[in-house]
Amino acid sequence: MTTPWIHRYAQRTQRMTSSVIRELLKFTAQPDIISFAGGLPAPELFPIEEFKAAADTVLSEMGPQALQYSTTEGYPPLREMIVRHMARYGIVVNIDNVLITTGSQEALDLIGKIMINVGDKILTEEPSYLGAIQAFTMYGADYVTVPIDEDGLQIGKLEEAMRSGPKFMYILPNFQNPAGVTLSLERRHELIALADRYGIPIIEDDPYGQLRYEGDHIKPLVVLDAECLQCEDNDRFSGNVIYLSTFSKTLAPGLRLGWVVAPKDVIHHIVQAKQGTDLHSSTFDQMLAYEVARGGFIDRHVRHIREVYHRRRDVMLRALERAFPDPAMGVHWTRPQGGLFLWVILPESIDTAELLQEAVKEKVAFVPGRAFYPNGGGHNTMRLNFSNASEEMIEEGIARLGRAVERHLHQEHVMA
Amino acid sequence: MTTPWIHRYAQRTQRMTSSVIRELLKFTAQPDIISFAGGLPAPELFPIEEFKAAADTVLSEMGPQALQYSTTEGYPPLREMIVRHMARYGIVVNIDNVLITTGSQEALDLIGKIMINVGDKILTEEPSYLGAIQAFTMYGADYVTVPIDEDGLQIGKLEEAMRSGPKFMYILPNFQNPAGVTLSLERRHELIALADRYGIPIIEDDPYGQLRYEGDHIKPLVVLDAECLQCEDNDRFSGNVIYLSTFSKTLAPGLRLGWVVAPKDVIHHIVQAKQGTDLHSSTFDQMLAYEVARGGFIDRHVRHIREVYHRRRDVMLRALERAFPDPAMGVHWTRPQGGLFLWVILPESIDTAELLQEAVKEKVAFVPGRAFYPNGGGHNTMRLNFSNASEEMIEEGIARLGRAVERHLHQEHVMA
Repeated sequence: MTTPWIHRYAQRTQRMTSSVIRELLKFTAQPDIISFAGGLPAPELFPIEEFKAAADTVLSEMGPQALQYSTTEGYPPLREMIVRHMARYGIVVNIDNVLITTGSQEALDLIGKIMINVGDKILTEEPSYLGAIQAFTMYGADYVTVPIDEDGLQIGKLEEAMRSGPKFMYILPNFQNPAGVTLSLERRHELIALADRYGIPIIEDDPYGQLRYEGDHIKPLVVLDAECLQCEDNDRFSGNVIYLSTFSKTLAPGLRLGWVVAPKDVIHHIVQAKQGTDLHSSTFDQMLAYEVARGGFIDRHVRHIREVYHRRRDVMLRALERAFPDPAMGVHWTRPQGGLFLWVILPESIDTAELLQEAVKEKVAFVPGRAFYPNGGGHNTMRLNFSNASEEMIEEGIARLGRAVERHLHQEHVMA
Repeated sequence: MTTPWIHRYAQRTQRMTSSVIRELLKFTAQPDIISFAGGLPAPELFPIEEFKAAADTVLSEMGPQALQYSTTEGYPPLREMIVRHMARYGIVVNIDNVLITTGSQEALDLIGKIMINVGDKILTEEPSYLGAIQAFTMYGADYVTVPIDEDGLQIGKLEEAMRSGPKFMYILPNFQNPAGVTLSLERRHELIALADRYGIPIIEDDPYGQLRYEGDHIKPLVVLDAECLQCEDNDRFSGNVIYLSTFSKTLAPGLRLGWVVAPKDVIHHIVQAKQGTDLHSSTFDQMLAYEVARGGFIDRHVRHIREVYHRRRDVMLRALERAFPDPAMGVHWTRPQGGLFLWVILPESIDTAELLQEAVKEKVAFVPGRAFYPNGGGHNTMRLNFSNASEEMIEEGIARLGRAVERHLHQEHVMA
């Protein structure tokens, strides 16, 4: 039973090969599978009691306002809080530079909406975040990609890619999704200088920046851009960078609250696009997030999240060393300093989409890396999430996955 | 201080003449102005105690789920409730035909996203809902418009407009925004037959259908389409209509929750588009809406809203008769059977944008009708909202507006 006109009309969604994230979320729903596939925060850390108290306060004191339409830009006290928070990272802005979005995903969509025409090239890391690729592809984007290594974007390969004329660059500098790597300070400086030289704006997506478990904080691109002495226009935030972040990893993803920091005139255009997209993000959720986060709670809470995820990362790294084949077999993985993910590279002969079928038989799941390569590739890679499973589950899940990998490698060996 | 690249890039938002709704919301914020400009529900009717109890229940019983990521399609119990609710209006569907959106505005955006290519024609009523025009214009839509009268779309003028090859028709059959008129049953039948003959789908936007204050409920287009005997494909909901509605007028707009009812394969494409737009709508707000609405509460609540808005409509109609010039002066207005708005047509010589400046001096505001005409026109029209002000405020506001109109008419007369 099909509707005749939808197939003729829906050209954009037909470009999408498949709704990969959604299919993956289905794996995570099966209760007997240990899933490293999602990008879910640990729900047992959600501050539920604080949310209960905040809901009561918001509805008791500001109920009519909380349930009513509100402005597209977002709840002013929440935006002021973000301004204060950003200042601690050296991002000096005021409330007019901040827009609340329905999750970071909406920020990606709105940027695509105002900037991308069909056939425009977008420069991304390879691999890069699937949700961004989905958002941009809907507007007809093509991609020029630059491979990454342990220090992030391989800056030596950037200039050539930039010369192909991308509309903008989409970069995840901290604990990148999917690979978990971090762009070094030296490379950040080079990136900013090149962006300035070629006049190509940067979308800096930083959902995990606060979740650093070791090493020193590295200045965000938006700060380096503001400091950039080579820039002709020296006004702060008249620069080349749109900065994105989110409450999804520090408070609760179910609220769908992210934010954009950008020059005021850029915000103006994004606000116009958002108005036609969803008018504004949930008033109640914005007031709730503010009420929960304020008074220093979010800082204490993020410290707690960091401790838990730090241990989980360590458990996963140790379990990989125990359960996975030797590097001599061509099996490698990243050692992220923060965030939610690490990245495994298997021998060229392995297809992780096939491996996944075997893994599911062992009751463990991951994301085959291919989905993160907008121009193809990555068949022998996988993404593992370490935030959503307990330490015991991680031990057990990696043991299962190790068996699946060993068996798959052995089969390959026998067949070869 | 401008950012050089944004003006080069942001072609879509530059097509928007101005962010009209947003500018209007600023009027409503001034405390001494009586505003008939917004489309805001009466905040004093929001069921705040019920929301408090529901927030407590949801967080106590399902806290980790409520704050976590969830599926793009929406919270299943809420979708099941919508299925049961729709059935009462003769719309027989199952959960796979229902998608939760971030307000109806997002549904309009997603439909634009999957269906509109630059230069496509969209057929709308004239005047039509500003938010839809904004959503579609972002994707490069052009418009072919069909004027309305007291019985809605002038069906005699429809076929010629359809022959210009619109991609789809966007129709508000009940208590239309902005004009408050309702499409008669006879015209609905003709519209469905024509849509079938030319194979042009209909977006049926029905935010106000439940807010009828007098007269009989008229079958939705989606039902007439399913019943249509002339249709070759007789499967229910393999038809020509995408139906949209919302909790914004019956529960609370601040939650940003609407829904789409459509054939399953159409839903599939909209889900893919939504995934790239905001992943899903707020999990917590969806669970909250379900918890508040269930057990018959929403029916009792809607009855109460109807009573209050019914009285406000009557007060506004009576006040207009008292305070506004005689029809002999060329001043007319609609008598909506439901919804939130009525529509005033002034003599051709009056420009309501100019009149608004005079009205604001009298501390009263409305929406100049021009914004609702995608192809220009309507300079002598205005939209008045009667849901957001108390009966006393309506009396006083219409008296003020009457003075502004009288003075403006008199000036015109003197100048002529």
